[in-house]
Amino acid sequence: MTYEDSSGGVQDVGLLGPGRVASPAELATGDREFLQAMLHAEAALTRAQAELGLAPARAAEAVTAAARAERFDVRGLAVRARAGGNPVIPLVADLTAAVPEEAAAYVHRGATSQDVLDTAAMLVASRTLALVLPELERAVGELGRLAAEHRDTPMPGRTLTQHAVPTTFGLKAAGWRSLVLDARDRLAAVRAALPAQLGGAAGTLAAFGEFGREAFGRAESGASGASGAFGGVGERRELRLVSAYARQLGLAAPELPWHTLRTPVADLAGALAFTAGALGKLAADVLVLSRTEIGEVAEGGGGGSSAMPHKSNPVRATLIAAAARRAPALAATLYGSVAAADERPAGAWHAEWEPLRDLLRTVGGAARDAAELAAGLRVFPDRMRAHLDLTGGLIVTERLAAALSGPLGRAHAKQLLTEASANGVTGVDSWAELLRAAGLDEKAVAALDLADLADPTRYTGAAAALTDRALTRR
Amino acid sequence: MTYEDSSGGVQDVGLLGPGRVASPAELATGDREFLQAMLHAEAALTRAQAELGLAPARAAEAVTAAARAERFDVRGLAVRARAGGNPVIPLVADLTAAVPEEAAAYVHRGATSQDVLDTAAMLVASRTLALVLPELERAVGELGRLAAEHRDTPMPGRTLTQHAVPTTFGLKAAGWRSLVLDARDRLAAVRAALPAQLGGAAGTLAAFGEFGREAFGRAESGASGASGAFGGVGERRELRLVSAYARQLGLAAPELPWHTLRTPVADLAGALAFTAGALGKLAADVLVLSRTEIGEVAEGGGGGSSAMPHKSNPVRATLIAAAARRAPALAATLYGSVAAADERPAGAWHAEWEPLRDLLRTVGGAARDAAELAAGLRVFPDRMRAHLDLTGGLIVTERLAAALSGPLGRAHAKQLLTEASANGVTGVDSWAELLRAAGLDEKAVAALDLADLADPTRYTGAAAALTDRALTRR
Amino acid sequence: MTYEDSSGGVQDVGLLGPGRVASPAELATGDREFLQAMLHAEAALTRAQAELGLAPARAAEAVTAAARAERFDVRGLAVRARAGGNPVIPLVADLTAAVPEEAAAYVHRGATSQDVLDTAAMLVASRTLALVLPELERAVGELGRLAAEHRDTPMPGRTLTQHAVPTTFGLKAAGWRSLVLDARDRLAAVRAALPAQLGGAAGTLAAFGEFGREAFGRAESGASGASGAFGGVGERRELRLVSAYARQLGLAAPELPWHTLRTPVADLAGALAFTAGALGKLAADVLVLSRTEIGEVAEGGGGGSSAMPHKSNPVRATLIAAAARRAPALAATLYGSVAAADERPAGAWHAEWEPLRDLLRTVGGAARDAAELAAGLRVFPDRMRAHLDLTGGLIVTERLAAALSGPLGRAHAKQLLTEASANGVTGVDSWAELLRAAGLDEKAVAALDLADLADPTRYTGAAAALTDRALTRR
Amino acid sequence: MTYEDSSGGVQDVGLLGPGRVASPAELATGDREFLQAMLHAEAALTRAQAELGLAPARAAEAVTAAARAERFDVRGLAVRARAGGNPVIPLVADLTAAVPEEAAAYVHRGATSQDVLDTAAMLVASRTLALVLPELERAVGELGRLAAEHRDTPMPGRTLTQHAVPTTFGLKAAGWRSLVLDARDRLAAVRAALPAQLGGAAGTLAAFGEFGREAFGRAESGASGASGAFGGVGERRELRLVSAYARQLGLAAPELPWHTLRTPVADLAGALAFTAGALGKLAADVLVLSRTEIGEVAEGGGGGSSAMPHKSNPVRATLIAAAARRAPALAATLYGSVAAADERPAGAWHAEWEPLRDLLRTVGGAARDAAELAAGLRVFPDRMRAHLDLTGGLIVTERLAAALSGPLGRAHAKQLLTEASANGVTGVDSWAELLRAAGLDEKAVAALDLADLADPTRYTGAAAALTDRALTRR
Repeated sequence: MTYEDSSGGVQDVGLLGPGRVASPAELATGDREFLQAMLHAEAALTRAQAELGLAPARAAEAVTAAARAERFDVRGLAVRARAGGNPVIPLVADLTAAVPEEAAAYVHRGATSQDVLDTAAMLVASRTLALVLPELERAVGELGRLAAEHRDTPMPGRTLTQHAVPTTFGLKAAGWRSLVLDARDRLAAVRAALPAQLGGAAGTLAAFGEFGREAFGRAESGASGASGAFGGVGERRELRLVSAYARQLGLAAPELPWHTLRTPVADLAGALAFTAGALGKLAADVLVLSRTEIGEVAEGGGGGSSAMPHKSNPVRATLIAAAARRAPALAATLYGSVAAADERPAGAWHAEWEPLRDLLRTVGGAARDAAELAAGLRVFPDRMRAHLDLTGGLIVTERLAAALSGPLGRAHAKQLLTEASANGVTGVDSWAELLRAAGLDEKAVAALDLADLADPTRYTGAAAALTDRALTRR
Repeated sequence: MTYEDSSGGVQDVGLLGPGRVASPAELATGDREFLQAMLHAEAALTRAQAELGLAPARAAEAVTAAARAERFDVRGLAVRARAGGNPVIPLVADLTAAVPEEAAAYVHRGATSQDVLDTAAMLVASRTLALVLPELERAVGELGRLAAEHRDTPMPGRTLTQHAVPTTFGLKAAGWRSLVLDARDRLAAVRAALPAQLGGAAGTLAAFGEFGREAFGRAESGASGASGAFGGVGERRELRLVSAYARQLGLAAPELPWHTLRTPVADLAGALAFTAGALGKLAADVLVLSRTEIGEVAEGGGGGSSAMPHKSNPVRATLIAAAARRAPALAATLYGSVAAADERPAGAWHAEWEPLRDLLRTVGGAARDAAELAAGLRVFPDRMRAHLDLTGGLIVTERLAAALSGPLGRAHAKQLLTEASANGVTGVDSWAELLRAAGLDEKAVAALDLADLADPTRYTGAAAALTDRALTRR
Repeated sequence: MTYEDSSGGVQDVGLLGPGRVASPAELATGDREFLQAMLHAEAALTRAQAELGLAPARAAEAVTAAARAERFDVRGLAVRARAGGNPVIPLVADLTAAVPEEAAAYVHRGATSQDVLDTAAMLVASRTLALVLPELERAVGELGRLAAEHRDTPMPGRTLTQHAVPTTFGLKAAGWRSLVLDARDRLAAVRAALPAQLGGAAGTLAAFGEFGREAFGRAESGASGASGAFGGVGERRELRLVSAYARQLGLAAPELPWHTLRTPVADLAGALAFTAGALGKLAADVLVLSRTEIGEVAEGGGGGSSAMPHKSNPVRATLIAAAARRAPALAATLYGSVAAADERPAGAWHAEWEPLRDLLRTVGGAARDAAELAAGLRVFPDRMRAHLDLTGGLIVTERLAAALSGPLGRAHAKQLLTEASANGVTGVDSWAELLRAAGLDEKAVAALDLADLADPTRYTGAAAALTDRALTRR
Repeated sequence: MTYEDSSGGVQDVGLLGPGRVASPAELATGDREFLQAMLHAEAALTRAQAELGLAPARAAEAVTAAARAERFDVRGLAVRARAGGNPVIPLVADLTAAVPEEAAAYVHRGATSQDVLDTAAMLVASRTLALVLPELERAVGELGRLAAEHRDTPMPGRTLTQHAVPTTFGLKAAGWRSLVLDARDRLAAVRAALPAQLGGAAGTLAAFGEFGREAFGRAESGASGASGAFGGVGERRELRLVSAYARQLGLAAPELPWHTLRTPVADLAGALAFTAGALGKLAADVLVLSRTEIGEVAEGGGGGSSAMPHKSNPVRATLIAAAARRAPALAATLYGSVAAADERPAGAWHAEWEPLRDLLRTVGGAARDAAELAAGLRVFPDRMRAHLDLTGGLIVTERLAAALSGPLGRAHAKQLLTEASANGVTGVDSWAELLRAAGLDEKAVAALDLADLADPTRYTGAAAALTDRALTRR
């Protein structure tokens, strides 16, 4: 066993992943972190056995002491994983060699590779989400601040790319915040339920029931009175072992071994894909609003260009948008692996590992970027206000149509305004003339108060009330 | 307006969808059901306005009476939907024409197309899930029965396609049941939260605040004292309208208009994709276990063949498996639409409609098939028992290795058995000889009780206990 | 057998598919068209057998005469398809009942369901693409016209949403055209290779070799001397039958039965997904350029709104964008079905039918919309020209930087301009001052010809030459 | 600039990727290989400029000499890539610093980041495919050998998991080979067309036309007479530069800059996803055929288990199957990025990098595994032969039905055999009895030669002829 890395030139260090590079999620999902989590699983298994008197405490201590990732050759394990199709097989060999001889028999005892790899994946997921959730909270805080600050900042509402009616930037920011809260709630719920995996070779926990038959019971009979407990407890000992193991790891104890009952992975997939979309909505809006012609917002520190000195690109939003494009497909692969045959499948499980890591990392990186984006976002109310006049009042034709449906009838009012819009007839004076031509007398025209009707800042509806209510959610 | 269908030859009636044809989910998701749901949304909107005194009760009654899908030309609406990109625009025209003139002004008043289409999609989803959930419950019941009946039926556990160690059919069925329960829980939770949609042109509810400005307030001032209420209530009236509308429809009232906050659609996507996978796990196992060479289970009534008289195909499992292959990609499209720009998007929303319907229908069909499959599944314990002997005892080498690690040490025991397996040395007598050759004396060999160790039916571990515990879940 | 449709209310007539409704591709992919194609396959099979003397000519005529979709109950077939998992099984029964008794034995003789359904899918694909390719050609023509007309129309080049350097609308349109040509080339190549399917129960064509053993040879010995031919031809007769069958259908003859060698379906998936993307690029650009604030292009006849009289939405582009969002996931399902087990698979095949149809239809609809969009697109060169000045000259900083790297050195020039951009220092006069402050004398400043350098219309590089060259491609 | 790696613990070295670890494709797609390809692109750009007299030859030599990946800090570049959203921006800075001062101005001159990153991706793809294609050829050779060796080895044909009619292992292997040849043809065609990217900031190549305006022309006027050529050549110089650059790199010269015309990436996506499926078909069959109960094939060196000494898992097939599950979703992301807005997009491009690398690597790993699998596959004709008898003759009922349709009529024959199958009436003697009961006299029964009809090895149809013909393809 060599403890130094033998990877040579085949390391990936994030060169193609600026969206996640150096993010907490990336740092928590590297190969070494996965290796460390596997080692934590192995050590917890031995400790849990010791806790139940099925292994000597000394063995648990020895395995725990040896279970340090930096002592193992990650690349060597990766290469040797080819033979059996997963990295736990060579790891068990190396870990066994790394403990004192008398502890060797207690390494990985009764477990199967998938117990360790699934548990490691859940540990990594749990640790990563523990870092991602605060990023989301940070984004929530910043977006809440923006919503409150701009509760009454009017701007064009846009639908199918066109100005529709006015809205407020506060409502927009409250919507972003609401989506991020939805994402946080889903991720937090999934995280709280992430289970340890322990089933043994085919999910029956059978090997763990055999320990009483082994000589060690006799050899170590002094140790914690373990052997005495064997007969009486019977079958249920395996279930207690699962609980102890999960407790050692801070994970939930599963109802059943879930080698091919992949609810936890699917739940992660869904919550992460949704989170990517939620952050992607923020990014999509920022990309629109920071277009050169629109310029209603700008990223705090835009990105430069290798060619053009003047560019200030919305880089955070761009990288979040890229994450949102990737996540659904990664989640689809994970959902596709739920339909896994047998007690442990040939391929469906193996297809999960890299997409799950990518998804954690991609979404985690996007959460970091979203927090930065929200914190630094510059908002330009003047631009928003100016754009409200861009259509010469067309942005309030809905309101005008409602007001005119009284004197003119709904259908006539709509027709009149549609024609006017098509002919570019806009503005208070033109409308007044139009109405007179349509037969309204001066008094009726005056009663409409066209100047007020045409003021886009007075047609933001319940935007402020919706914003206020949405901000009460925590 | 023609009330008869003008679709000519372009109807789809399920010819390519045997997995969903004639299922409750299909019947609940046809074009006519979507149309009816849109009409329900329109009628509920007018009723909600009447409830708040914003429209005459007579108008609400008239719109409700007219809102019957069979009165409209579905294909005609579909074709006219092209002009504006969604079917609500022509529907509003037809519905307006279908009500008495005095009610016309109250049709769709203040709403936008997406309010109606999103609400209709949630109604269809809710109604479909109301039919799918009982199918899942039926499957749960049948799988629970199978698990209880076969609590102690031993069979080979299979991993990476190979016999591993024994398990029980009861544990397998309990696992299937557990997954279906997970699916049921997720779908039920999502269903309970499905919201109505109401936001108006850009999500500010602004048009609903304008009704006081319209002449109708004055003209109908006798009606429910509505006009009097306008001044005092102010802004919050719009929020009350959203609640009334949702209540009329039996949907949840949303925190915010969710035109581009697509949590409900994403939640449906995730829960449905997971359900497809959960049922797909059942199907994948049935497909393996009913292979000609295995024959441990068979579908109650297998499907025939156009060529071969003897064939009895696992058709239910096949169709479920097909659904499980389709669902993740459909969900991916829906997750991809979460990142929708602006107040209403150009494309992301439109890309949801058909995948959401397909997903509901595909998964609903699979639920129907799963219930049938579980109800009719024939189980052949004799075949399972016979297969346990297929490897000449290799299926219990794990147990043997554990037992031998006492007298021989773990590494030596494993090596001995690996070599024996490779050389085809199996069976109690051969093992006894092997152990003697390895230096064990007769007494030590006898103490091992090889006959018991080699009995696969005695090595099912905690399978029964796990089954019992899993069956307590409701 | 009932010949009238029994579908009741469960028809889909395109209500949720405005992007494809009433398009040639939709009309070519309905259930009736699939049914007709299955019947064409059945009739061609009997005719091919007659051609080889394996069936009486009268039987071939009878089957051909009966093979008219309008005589069959599509919904009834769909519902009965559930039993065996595909619609060919009941169709064979109905077709057999629909021919004279003496022809009955020659219906579907020797074939398996998948032979007929796969062949039908290829026929439908071929017929649909025959309608889609001209739409693409139409789009190519219109885009070529736009490119030629606007060869020298300058506009802002945009990268990461920001103005970068100038480009021309001609080059943009030439790029759109180039992508559509790529799509056309890929679809045409795939279409030309679409094969018939004929393999019999497990792809060995075995049943077709048995006909000589049947009594019919004797009973019908007068018919075309068929029986005499049986002995001499031997095994290769089956291969000749495949060729004759393919020829009857106008499809390619496959090298091998491809029941689980799904190259043709995968090739369709790839070419269609690419086409959706290619058209989606056009749509994405139109959606950006027709934003209210940008307004450099507009759809010929924009779509209306159910709420806002003034709206003129880019509906064609919206529907194309929706298609582009859906296609990759549909293609992914088809690619996923390539890995199909056995001689005919349980699920992978069944999962292809609806996604393949959806993909043909969705992409075909998008092609129709793209042709319309390109034909009607209105271009506003004045807006483009105006936008070139929007950044006060920043759009030519790249050029400026290049020019200044002579007198100032590259690094210094870039730094100077980056600072100037950040400080909003723009315009010829300001730059001149800046350069003087940087130490350039008046002569050097004059030599730079800042007015020319700052003219964005003079910095379109090779855009015109690229456009010219691209337009030579046919 | 630090030249040593600063990645600390965040390296990925393949721990979660046993399917691709240490494969040629992995070694060709690491971060360092991408970095080296970017450097190759930068150097080629300067050399191409020198070739056209636009840069001094010394500068080209200097950049080429400096463009060695091992001199750069990959992790440092990755981290610094965050600021601008891609790694080329910091790389240009470091490369500029790494060349002599007089060459600095010629580094990356006129290019944009995407020119370099896209070109690098194409180089990496080309180099990877150059390694993957021989693996596919190796698989083709081995599969051809298997097909030829087992041309006449009968085995059960299986459809919907059930025995259908006999086939041969030769035909099965020929089918695998045919699919792999399809994959090879598609990958080779795509590889031959992979283009270099060069467009400058917005695809107009404008900066390359500015060099004559720079002072360097004058300063270096002695160098290859470059300056003299500037005036006369005009615009087309940029196009010649693109050709020279592509030639330097061994890539195709593109018709247009393809920053947002993503045909090359989509073509890679399709060909790679298809290849994964093609290899996945082989794997799916091997997984079925090597099941413990079937055992008709076995991998040469099966994988071990961390728990069970006796296991010999089909590990190569498992890892290929995992790759086939992942590839369609990765391709879907790439197809989704074709619809990219503007001259360079905000997110669509960034979303390509990791999926493209993963796809190359995943499929390349699977190709390696498929070659190994095919080379080592052990085939057990005796098991195949034994399985043909497993259904007691039911596997030839199709043939029997054909033979009986003479004396009994087709419908009666099919009915008789369906009932017999359902009742388990099988075997020559039972059938003879059945026929007598159906009214056939002894002579008629004898004439049928039931013993021959019932011999499954005599009912393999055109399998051998199809195999022979398929093997002529190269």
